[in-house]
Amino acid sequence: MARKALNIGMVGYGFMGRAHSNAYRKVNNFFDLDYVPVLRAVAARNKKKAEAFAYSWGYESVETDWRDLVKRNDIDAIDICTPNDLHAEIAIAAAKAGKMVLCEKPLARTAKEALPMVKAVEKAKVPNLVWYNYRRIPAVSFIQQIVASGKLGKIFHYRSKFLQDWTISPDVPQGGAGTWRLDVEAAGSGVTGDLLAHCIDGAIWINGSIDSLTAMTETFIKKRKHADTGKMQAVGIDDASAVLTRFKNGSLGMFEASRYARGHKALYAFEINGEHGSLGWDLHDLNRVAWFDHTQPSNMRGWTSILVTDGDHPYLGKWWVPGLTIGYEHSFIHTVADFLEGLSTGEKVGPTFRDAYETALVCDAIIESGKTGKWKKVAGK
Amino acid sequence: MARKALNIGMVGYGFMGRAHSNAYRKVNNFFDLDYVPVLRAVAARNKKKAEAFAYSWGYESVETDWRDLVKRNDIDAIDICTPNDLHAEIAIAAAKAGKMVLCEKPLARTAKEALPMVKAVEKAKVPNLVWYNYRRIPAVSFIQQIVASGKLGKIFHYRSKFLQDWTISPDVPQGGAGTWRLDVEAAGSGVTGDLLAHCIDGAIWINGSIDSLTAMTETFIKKRKHADTGKMQAVGIDDASAVLTRFKNGSLGMFEASRYARGHKALYAFEINGEHGSLGWDLHDLNRVAWFDHTQPSNMRGWTSILVTDGDHPYLGKWWVPGLTIGYEHSFIHTVADFLEGLSTGEKVGPTFRDAYETALVCDAIIESGKTGKWKKVAGK
Amino acid sequence: MARKALNIGMVGYGFMGRAHSNAYRKVNNFFDLDYVPVLRAVAARNKKKAEAFAYSWGYESVETDWRDLVKRNDIDAIDICTPNDLHAEIAIAAAKAGKMVLCEKPLARTAKEALPMVKAVEKAKVPNLVWYNYRRIPAVSFIQQIVASGKLGKIFHYRSKFLQDWTISPDVPQGGAGTWRLDVEAAGSGVTGDLLAHCIDGAIWINGSIDSLTAMTETFIKKRKHADTGKMQAVGIDDASAVLTRFKNGSLGMFEASRYARGHKALYAFEINGEHGSLGWDLHDLNRVAWFDHTQPSNMRGWTSILVTDGDHPYLGKWWVPGLTIGYEHSFIHTVADFLEGLSTGEKVGPTFRDAYETALVCDAIIESGKTGKWKKVAGK
Amino acid sequence: MARKALNIGMVGYGFMGRAHSNAYRKVNNFFDLDYVPVLRAVAARNKKKAEAFAYSWGYESVETDWRDLVKRNDIDAIDICTPNDLHAEIAIAAAKAGKMVLCEKPLARTAKEALPMVKAVEKAKVPNLVWYNYRRIPAVSFIQQIVASGKLGKIFHYRSKFLQDWTISPDVPQGGAGTWRLDVEAAGSGVTGDLLAHCIDGAIWINGSIDSLTAMTETFIKKRKHADTGKMQAVGIDDASAVLTRFKNGSLGMFEASRYARGHKALYAFEINGEHGSLGWDLHDLNRVAWFDHTQPSNMRGWTSILVTDGDHPYLGKWWVPGLTIGYEHSFIHTVADFLEGLSTGEKVGPTFRDAYETALVCDAIIESGKTGKWKKVAGK
Repeated sequence: MARKALNIGMVGYGFMGRAHSNAYRKVNNFFDLDYVPVLRAVAARNKKKAEAFAYSWGYESVETDWRDLVKRNDIDAIDICTPNDLHAEIAIAAAKAGKMVLCEKPLARTAKEALPMVKAVEKAKVPNLVWYNYRRIPAVSFIQQIVASGKLGKIFHYRSKFLQDWTISPDVPQGGAGTWRLDVEAAGSGVTGDLLAHCIDGAIWINGSIDSLTAMTETFIKKRKHADTGKMQAVGIDDASAVLTRFKNGSLGMFEASRYARGHKALYAFEINGEHGSLGWDLHDLNRVAWFDHTQPSNMRGWTSILVTDGDHPYLGKWWVPGLTIGYEHSFIHTVADFLEGLSTGEKVGPTFRDAYETALVCDAIIESGKTGKWKKVAGK
Repeated sequence: MARKALNIGMVGYGFMGRAHSNAYRKVNNFFDLDYVPVLRAVAARNKKKAEAFAYSWGYESVETDWRDLVKRNDIDAIDICTPNDLHAEIAIAAAKAGKMVLCEKPLARTAKEALPMVKAVEKAKVPNLVWYNYRRIPAVSFIQQIVASGKLGKIFHYRSKFLQDWTISPDVPQGGAGTWRLDVEAAGSGVTGDLLAHCIDGAIWINGSIDSLTAMTETFIKKRKHADTGKMQAVGIDDASAVLTRFKNGSLGMFEASRYARGHKALYAFEINGEHGSLGWDLHDLNRVAWFDHTQPSNMRGWTSILVTDGDHPYLGKWWVPGLTIGYEHSFIHTVADFLEGLSTGEKVGPTFRDAYETALVCDAIIESGKTGKWKKVAGK
Repeated sequence: MARKALNIGMVGYGFMGRAHSNAYRKVNNFFDLDYVPVLRAVAARNKKKAEAFAYSWGYESVETDWRDLVKRNDIDAIDICTPNDLHAEIAIAAAKAGKMVLCEKPLARTAKEALPMVKAVEKAKVPNLVWYNYRRIPAVSFIQQIVASGKLGKIFHYRSKFLQDWTISPDVPQGGAGTWRLDVEAAGSGVTGDLLAHCIDGAIWINGSIDSLTAMTETFIKKRKHADTGKMQAVGIDDASAVLTRFKNGSLGMFEASRYARGHKALYAFEINGEHGSLGWDLHDLNRVAWFDHTQPSNMRGWTSILVTDGDHPYLGKWWVPGLTIGYEHSFIHTVADFLEGLSTGEKVGPTFRDAYETALVCDAIIESGKTGKWKKVAGK
Repeated sequence: MARKALNIGMVGYGFMGRAHSNAYRKVNNFFDLDYVPVLRAVAARNKKKAEAFAYSWGYESVETDWRDLVKRNDIDAIDICTPNDLHAEIAIAAAKAGKMVLCEKPLARTAKEALPMVKAVEKAKVPNLVWYNYRRIPAVSFIQQIVASGKLGKIFHYRSKFLQDWTISPDVPQGGAGTWRLDVEAAGSGVTGDLLAHCIDGAIWINGSIDSLTAMTETFIKKRKHADTGKMQAVGIDDASAVLTRFKNGSLGMFEASRYARGHKALYAFEINGEHGSLGWDLHDLNRVAWFDHTQPSNMRGWTSILVTDGDHPYLGKWWVPGLTIGYEHSFIHTVADFLEGLSTGEKVGPTFRDAYETALVCDAIIESGKTGKWKKVAGK
């Protein structure tokens, strides 16, 4: 009954730092696992904030330089929750130090920046994972399983979007703690890497690789004050992104992300249409799957709303009873549970750095096509 | 190809006069029938209004006394669209004159008042029908068929409500053209006869007879100005009505009607729960059936929203193509279509006066139980 | 009170022939108008079918050659309900004969084919209209009014789709009575002209002209039997069409049409996102408007489902009472009502041939971009 | 920054033991509180299961007799998660020992059994709470606040139901671990105490006390095997319960609970209709509030679906960002957070034992009226 410790060194203490820490703390209450995450240390430049974070979450110690964290012998895994511009350096150093690496998405600002990270973890042969957490919303996992079973038959359409509305005001700055995602230096891109990357990761997982695409990107507000400098500066990110794709399996894709879609808080949604049925899901009602079964008698057909809360749905046997829902944070707990299970079984748990690199390649193609207006073949991972 | 005329004499020109007239005018465009309704005459005391109505709808002539209409030899069927207090006298006279009678619901103000009407049409052996139109919303007909097929197994629950919010203001008068439904003299009862009667008719049709019930009724606004006298007068109708019932098949019923349910315009809704499945419907989204099929694999179960617009759904083969909806008025067209078809086949088309009398008995029991607070056995029809 | 006759000569007796005829027959029952359509004649090559149609709908006479219809002096307006390949010839002849012309959409198979039609009606100065009926679904009209009022502020996004699933089987033929829409010779294009054209017409009406676009089109099933020849033949139409657009007002558009979207019968849907609010609608629930009002207090904001059935909603004052819905066919009745009203007032009623020509230009650009993969500027109407 | 320990002694290790333990473990990660719950001991007769539970949740020790737990000096609060028949004895002993008591709902099997518990905690002056957790679903708390603000004006209707379908099979036993809720000895009543009690607690909290009621109860399956004895035994619980009530504020109530409502897993739902607006909620979509605001312009009115996930919604400022949802378990975390906050401020945190006693009185009246068929005045708490 003795569980093995997996000593976690966390870098960053922001929103994602909380989501991951919560996952580490809860996973063993609900899942039977050989490993138990131990919150050894959190690293962040601001010592006071790091200490407050450690206090809230029970981290045993604090580092003010992530390099010191990476050096520590009592750390097994580095979890990277910093802005995107720091992912590569930290991940590569951690891999070189023989640590497992769990990195927030997107893997890096660009595919070019991501590739050395992939190579580093593969060379070091360390378990590695990118936190595309929405794969492990039970409803999403369930859809992936149904599609993989072939139940839908030939696939014709995959459409996905991630819509928000929090940057419509010109007063939102770029850069800074809560708003670095508007700063192209820190983020690499705008909605494409932040939001659409989730759609792409999900699409590849569920519907396979994307062959080629054409995209339209837009920056509605051209200048914003930078939180660090206090000066108005050109905005380098994409505020909205829309994409047409052809998948390798012959199906057509439509993708969209925006932070200017008034009324949508975090509406990640997708739908897949096949010969024998269709499936849909959205993040606002994340416990539900929309299911159309064309094999039913024709006068009884319709879209069925499956409330994914039962013991025979993915992950749900570990939680409550039918009808009682879980939320956003559980996707992270499931990610940790699968990662820990993978350590026991030796099986790869995705999305690995290599998997996330493919998503980065698609995102790069989108940004480029947004500039050239031309169709672009997605490079192979 | 020559169709037989069914010569219609309409009494009244209000909201229901329009709904019925529209049905008579359209039915032969969409249904293949032996009979064609011919709009011979409309009777109403106000000659000018009757003439305007006749002009809009193509009635050939006008009478200012319904007695003259009943006497006419060129009329086959009398359609009664007056306030409730006139139903009995007109229907009985029409039956005596050998006319078919189509009467707006409720049949009369009370079951006691209704019984002689039933006897009159049965003695005269004339085709007779009460316009409980919602039976012939295709989705409702479809539900009735599914339940009748036994697909749900043993029935446990039937719940139904009809909610509106148009009388919340104390400034709404009682009596008068648009507001006679608030005047107990004209209407007989309030929401019980006006709204709940639809719920009861549907319940009996779908789930069988009601054995016994207990009810709560309320008049929220105790005095209202009378439109005729201009004086404040005690309100005699029920503003809200709530009922618990036991059906003869052992299932439990809950019924509610109100004109004080803010936010609901005309929300007639019902749901039936059986051993193997459940069905639901509401008037605001009248082309949809909610269907839960417990025989599906457990992890794929959910409520299916069937869009009832296809050729293999009741009545829909006569209309457009899948996905294209119909509305409220079509329930009247279907009623006429079935009535005319019944004239050809000789089969009884419900709800007959006798059927509607059962609904009246239930409504009377509700009003009485609302006063006594006691359970009441429903008298047999 | 005497109304003027508008003598209608109908060409075709198919699905649209029914929808239009129903509109002509009903409009005066509900709308107060100076004009009353009189169903003078229907023209179709198959005399027997034409006669049956005339009988069902009350047309006074039958012609077997539309040219004879156009020549008749007792006809004021020609209504074209044929397959698309006949629109141009008939419309031009009718205009030359001084008839008003009401033409089913799309105006023609291509913009090139449409242009002489536009010129013909403009030269003849005859009232002309293209039946983009969905503009006059009350919910859609209401949205157009709200957007036109400026209530949404600056517009960022417009997305629209029209999804069906009826051609997934390879056994569906091309050509023939019910399936001419799959035959490129008769239809001009596939889903682009049939379905997406509605989306484009609505978008231009509500959000203004489209500046440029890029598109992806696909034909999933490459060969189908032709109903006329009985032989397998290459399919020339687009089965699916997806488009990215830039509107002249700076907003971004996404459009999609498909007949391979399993589970969707006739799902025409659109959403528009502005600075201060958003609006959405779909054809399956056509009496509802989705409305997000960002000016509400932040903790009370959400998507409001407006049931568009009240007297203060467009066209609804003419129908029933709040909560009682109308359906698909009413969009045609409203089109006729507005057209007749326009005859009285002399005001142009859209979409005119010129308006529909702009939609044709967009559709042509889509088809071309689908082939070249390049962005295309939309030509000016 | 040093937090005070609140030493918890848990009795029971079932479903509710997990839900409460999870709440104790998580509350300080998200809420800034003076107190931190410390999981000192769990008591249960089955030592092996108690140890496994302690291991999963980090309880420091195990007791096999709750009496030993109550005696321990290192315990501040006793949390009762046993079947209902043990609540009274444990709670009274705990209060006498000067412990705070947190008791799962319903307080006891009957109001009569509950009263001494109320007196015991009040005499001992110990903080006490009953886990009617649904009050602290943020959407429910939000509704309570809106109603309390008077925004709805005069209230006319309150309707609430709790529907499940898990006991339809006659093979479900009574008694035993997962099925003691079917055994009247252990549970006291069936759906009335288990499910409807939540509806009643919520109704009293939101709409005030219930004056009187009439009820219908039913046991559909009359005999079931007892899990302990293995013998078929008469079923003593109510399978379904339906109630009409009059509230002291003059509004009308309708309540229903059933475990025979096919298709509903745990559908706790309620709606309240007032003069100026209405509010609704259900547990399956627990992050949403349905809101109808009659003060909006008449043509823009409708039901608004508020996604309750923002910082200005109750409790949500402690969680994630707008659009990211929480689930069932969070209601328990909020309960603990408020209880701990109450310890700091000295303010009473409801529902106290006294509050839950009122709910018990209502439930008793329901059971009695279900037998007599008569209206019953609810006794004062």
